[in-house]
Amino acid sequence: MNELNLIPHILPVPLEKAYRLLNHGPTVLVSAQDQTHIGVMTAAWACPVEFKPAKVSVVLDKSTMTRTIIENSGYFVLQVPNLKQLKMVYALGMMSQHDAPEKLRQCGVNLFHFPHSTLPAVEGCSAWLLCTLIVEPHHQQQHDLFIGEVIHAYADERIFKDGHWLFDQASEDWKSLHHVAGGHFYTIGHAVSVE
Amino acid sequence: MNELNLIPHILPVPLEKAYRLLNHGPTVLVSAQDQTHIGVMTAAWACPVEFKPAKVSVVLDKSTMTRTIIENSGYFVLQVPNLKQLKMVYALGMMSQHDAPEKLRQCGVNLFHFPHSTLPAVEGCSAWLLCTLIVEPHHQQQHDLFIGEVIHAYADERIFKDGHWLFDQASEDWKSLHHVAGGHFYTIGHAVSVE
Repeated sequence: MNELNLIPHILPVPLEKAYRLLNHGPTVLVSAQDQTHIGVMTAAWACPVEFKPAKVSVVLDKSTMTRTIIENSGYFVLQVPNLKQLKMVYALGMMSQHDAPEKLRQCGVNLFHFPHSTLPAVEGCSAWLLCTLIVEPHHQQQHDLFIGEVIHAYADERIFKDGHWLFDQASEDWKSLHHVAGGHFYTIGHAVSVE
Repeated sequence: MNELNLIPHILPVPLEKAYRLLNHGPTVLVSAQDQTHIGVMTAAWACPVEFKPAKVSVVLDKSTMTRTIIENSGYFVLQVPNLKQLKMVYALGMMSQHDAPEKLRQCGVNLFHFPHSTLPAVEGCSAWLLCTLIVEPHHQQQHDLFIGEVIHAYADERIFKDGHWLFDQASEDWKSLHHVAGGHFYTIGHAVSVE
């Protein structure tokens, strides 16, 4: 894994602005690490649930290895991928490490660490939310719903800066992905505002 | 309220396809009715949580009247609004009926009923998910998280047909809205697919 200081353009996002990284409903990558495995999977069903303390929810099917790793470790990362990662995002949602132990290599995932963190983060994304699992056995079992408190958030300043997404200024490659079904996604569109 | 048969273009969506109405992360309107009130509010934090039976989650702050109405009645509607409703969507998220008893009239909301349903639905939206509340007191109290099972789903065939959104074919007016913060939203963009 690379160290953050080898990866330019990544800046911390204040926790009170962390919800903005997910507020527009992007499909995310979920990553986690326990004592034996690193898991990365795609999830379309992720949401903020609280501004302060910043909390998020994500639905993780019982068949996924990443879910087990999160249950074991108590930590996970939600990251917002972009159009240049489309094939990887799709592949990470279709393959399971249970069947394909080499999934991460086959999908072309490169990992790095943020400072003072051992959580596995995926290179090339637009934003990252590092979370501690808020253990809720009934939620998890009954609805596959996992809740986390955001402990650190980061974004690539080329697409999210000073608390704002720059989708209208940056190139198409940086657009977030919004999954529909199968291999079909929409990119995020244009800014519209109420005066 | 109008009857559905006065509103052309609205077709049922099979429940196994209902998740597709929310899968791309749009901001929604939440509506509900109890014995004394009808509430409609905007919510950016809504998600599918299960394919079958189709289930959804939505975060509802304790300060909202719509939350109380849902707790009283056990039912709610999630609807997917579109760009032509931008001002209404913003206003429904900023005003509370606690302060403005005439909120719905002031926001320009027109309601209708689907057949065999007394749930209040907002005219002019792109899609509607009629839900029964799955009562989870701990979720609701601790995380403001409400889960519903979808009992009927509908969409306007001009923007969602045969299980697919038509954002690239329809006019800009039909684009879904993805809230960022304040009066700022993004519209949904273009379809991209993995071969």
